[in-house]
Amino acid sequence: MRATLIHGTRDIRLAEVPDPTVHLPGDAVVRVVASCVCGSDLWPYRGVRPATEPRRIGHEFVGIVEEVGAEVRTVAPGDFVIAPFAISDNTCRHCRHGITTSCENGAWWGQPDRHGVMVDGGQGERVRVPLADGTLVATPEQPDPALVPSLLTLSDVMGTGHHAAVSAGVRAGSTVVVVGDGAVGLCAVLAARRLGAERIVAMSRHAARQELARAFGATDIVAERGAEGVSAVKELLGGIGADAVLECVGTKESMAQALDSTRPGGYVGYVGVPAGGPELPIDKMFGGNINVAGGVAPVRTYLPELLGDVLSGAIDPGRVFDLELPLDEVAEAYAAMDERRAIKVLLRP
Amino acid sequence: MRATLIHGTRDIRLAEVPDPTVHLPGDAVVRVVASCVCGSDLWPYRGVRPATEPRRIGHEFVGIVEEVGAEVRTVAPGDFVIAPFAISDNTCRHCRHGITTSCENGAWWGQPDRHGVMVDGGQGERVRVPLADGTLVATPEQPDPALVPSLLTLSDVMGTGHHAAVSAGVRAGSTVVVVGDGAVGLCAVLAARRLGAERIVAMSRHAARQELARAFGATDIVAERGAEGVSAVKELLGGIGADAVLECVGTKESMAQALDSTRPGGYVGYVGVPAGGPELPIDKMFGGNINVAGGVAPVRTYLPELLGDVLSGAIDPGRVFDLELPLDEVAEAYAAMDERRAIKVLLRP
Repeated sequence: MRATLIHGTRDIRLAEVPDPTVHLPGDAVVRVVASCVCGSDLWPYRGVRPATEPRRIGHEFVGIVEEVGAEVRTVAPGDFVIAPFAISDNTCRHCRHGITTSCENGAWWGQPDRHGVMVDGGQGERVRVPLADGTLVATPEQPDPALVPSLLTLSDVMGTGHHAAVSAGVRAGSTVVVVGDGAVGLCAVLAARRLGAERIVAMSRHAARQELARAFGATDIVAERGAEGVSAVKELLGGIGADAVLECVGTKESMAQALDSTRPGGYVGYVGVPAGGPELPIDKMFGGNINVAGGVAPVRTYLPELLGDVLSGAIDPGRVFDLELPLDEVAEAYAAMDERRAIKVLLRP
Repeated sequence: MRATLIHGTRDIRLAEVPDPTVHLPGDAVVRVVASCVCGSDLWPYRGVRPATEPRRIGHEFVGIVEEVGAEVRTVAPGDFVIAPFAISDNTCRHCRHGITTSCENGAWWGQPDRHGVMVDGGQGERVRVPLADGTLVATPEQPDPALVPSLLTLSDVMGTGHHAAVSAGVRAGSTVVVVGDGAVGLCAVLAARRLGAERIVAMSRHAARQELARAFGATDIVAERGAEGVSAVKELLGGIGADAVLECVGTKESMAQALDSTRPGGYVGYVGVPAGGPELPIDKMFGGNINVAGGVAPVRTYLPELLGDVLSGAIDPGRVFDLELPLDEVAEAYAAMDERRAIKVLLRP
């Protein structure tokens, strides 16, 4: 079968690899129906976190179960399943607290597991799924193909945007600012609307992304950044910052933007992968009671709840995919996202 | 009248100063019944944040209203009142969100107000109280003198310990670790018990403080620090960290202790004044979903609720005062706290 490997900076190749098989009794093998490229895949792509040797990549996919190990109970061959971006048993102490990304037996796609066995990446034709019972969530029946993009966002970006909103305590009536207009930021807008936010300010300088933000529920757009952006936000929100600021980028500048846009006593909910920092300025946080919550999103925990809303049509996060390519063109998919020609690219094997 | 001034490092003097008067129509003049020395007063005392010229000091006091300005409505001469450590109008946008320490018209004891007028310190015989309606809370009647120490803790340490617990989301059944065995840490133990915590681990190496922590509700004591302390905490809490860790010191070491003692998805509630840092390590926070909430405690907001529990005898935070001195001996009060001979010193004018 074919799967995507990253060889080095801006070097993405599709290669022939052995077909996956059930290796452990808790494994499943899934035939991929759709996968995609993540903003965090761009870190190794851009050399910010360089790949030192060719390795499998991709951590978002949906597909059909082809085979399961002897111990698998919750999914069966033929099921349509969603794979979260982290592998978890969903039974350990951290999973029971809902933090499946800290699973005591967990693993990550494209990286060695606890036993040193490499786990497949998601950007391929088939994937071996360890801890299939804990990791995968099956839809009640075969979904309408039109729903596949939205289901695919539950692998990562929709659950991640939701985590930002939940971590920041967004509730009915909240004032919200979203920093970042990538797929996660746009999903954070949708998540904030879903949780009942009254005002949602999306910070974006790109017309197409502004439009999608409005479609997802943004009530206001701020194109300015830095001090001007903070002033514009405060002007919209009665002279003070927001109750909740959702930081969906992960740079020093975006975190500063978020902290400065939060009212005293408010929360920054952050999910942008911190690219080697920044450290957080505790003096500023302390003086204003600016709280910082979030981290790597335990999307598995949120999947059942969000799945219901996708299947009912209440939310349509799949609109973040503005480009669809065959897996053959995975290198172009990375380039399109790297150059910001696409918000998010869906890949069909 | 006499009031305390700090002249420089380890140089505290009682001096004759003019009697305060009603200066603005919202002012009150309060005759101090009891005041005290705060852990944060030790920063300038020790020269960490040096005083550049002699200035009034002290920000915790209770007393009797002697005189009020024409606009004061909620307190009257003869009332017994508690003064929070921050002056606030209790009506501005931030106060309405409960963050009275960010009051748009607020001020701090012993520092110039927004108009450049110096505000009195609390360690004196009388104090001019700006924004008296917003700042002061009167007891329903003259309190039993035995309650004065507990009422005095509502100026700062009890409300601050409570803020740590509230910020960290302590609720019925929570597992809690308290870092710091000063008056704030001990009050944080009491606050955690009051909020229903199931396990409360107090980190302390001092027998007298351990004993008071147990009296306040600590179920366990850990004397170790650093990695050994983290191991001991995890051993007590089923192998993982605590739901809520209350950081009541403000040093780099204490914050590291707190972050490392928190389970994935848990909260550090911090109220220790950060002494020039540290910055927070976002990579560690991100990976484990360790949330950090808190800051300078808006004790005015909590005062009515905690006052009820002090008056009913449900809590007795005044036990943190293990030394009482006449105001004459204020220099000795600072020395006793600096040398950790006393947890907290109460001063009687």
